[in-house]
Amino acid sequence: MKKKKDIRREEIIKEAALLFKKKGVGGTSMRDLAEQVGMDAATMYHYISSKDEILKTICFDIANTYVTQLAEIEQANLTLTQKLKALVKLHIHLMTTMGAEVSVANNDWKYLSPESLQEFKNLRKQYENKLAAFIETGKQAGELREVNTSVALFTLLSAVRWVELWWRQDRGISIEELENSILTILFQGLEKNGNMES
Amino acid sequence: MKKKKDIRREEIIKEAALLFKKKGVGGTSMRDLAEQVGMDAATMYHYISSKDEILKTICFDIANTYVTQLAEIEQANLTLTQKLKALVKLHIHLMTTMGAEVSVANNDWKYLSPESLQEFKNLRKQYENKLAAFIETGKQAGELREVNTSVALFTLLSAVRWVELWWRQDRGISIEELENSILTILFQGLEKNGNMES
Repeated sequence: MKKKKDIRREEIIKEAALLFKKKGVGGTSMRDLAEQVGMDAATMYHYISSKDEILKTICFDIANTYVTQLAEIEQANLTLTQKLKALVKLHIHLMTTMGAEVSVANNDWKYLSPESLQEFKNLRKQYENKLAAFIETGKQAGELREVNTSVALFTLLSAVRWVELWWRQDRGISIEELENSILTILFQGLEKNGNMES
Repeated sequence: MKKKKDIRREEIIKEAALLFKKKGVGGTSMRDLAEQVGMDAATMYHYISSKDEILKTICFDIANTYVTQLAEIEQANLTLTQKLKALVKLHIHLMTTMGAEVSVANNDWKYLSPESLQEFKNLRKQYENKLAAFIETGKQAGELREVNTSVALFTLLSAVRWVELWWRQDRGISIEELENSILTILFQGLEKNGNMES
């Protein structure tokens, strides 16, 4: 069971992510946040010490989720293609369930304090390198096409970035349809008989 | 032949796009820009009247390029798939040749003045609708896979967005390789025998 204090802290961070996404980290004050969560500032400081701490918590929660899940997927008994698909699904999943946090981690990491910034960049690099290694191995194993590895890496990561901006429950597209359409495009291609031409 | 004044104006706008991309529209002053182009502010105002005018010029130059090229591609004697590929190539081309301007048009359009903002949104919507119609028709013609049209539209547009942030002459990847890898992933799929499974 989570402690009451931890739950309250998480609620504050959740609201902070929404405000950061809407008004930017620079445009959000601790006073705005206190107002949003309906506390006076003094009470809020009982749970969280600064905007820096909030930003750090959001960015590293997301980064650690990616790194942890990647490690699990790496160990799983799956083909390289299945592993890559699982990672793309993970990105879509985080964007549909924690859109504001993902947006902050994607766009506002540059405002982290210097040592956090370096640590965050290292985690991201580590994640990208592992993903690149999946693609490289998949090519060597004949599972994946002979495309440039860096281009494939960034195309996969970038191709799902719009989801966080666009997806809402009321768009009339289920998460399943969203996932299936994206995975189909990226792994089978939009063109119906595209494989025959090659 | 372009007039000298027009050439100088274009140079100022080019530098402004670089500054906007680096420091944000809000973080760039006309004084910063004058310094960057090596003019005193009074001389610069001879060419350009305000930051608003610069932002408007950059955003509409890019938007009009997309709309004009789309109209040409629409009239061309090509399959739907070829038309879509030509549009993806256009996006890559603009990002490798006018990266800063594309970045400003993608990220800073929200700072346009109210009436420009509405006009810009209309142009973008018009562009997206035409692209969606290509995808829809391509599906009906049996050229493209049965994926959700909106998902396909945004996945295509988003998949190339990283290029503007990443691509440089010295990355060791030619524009041709970049284009080929991206088009292969999006239209044939990353998975080698992906089509056979379907």
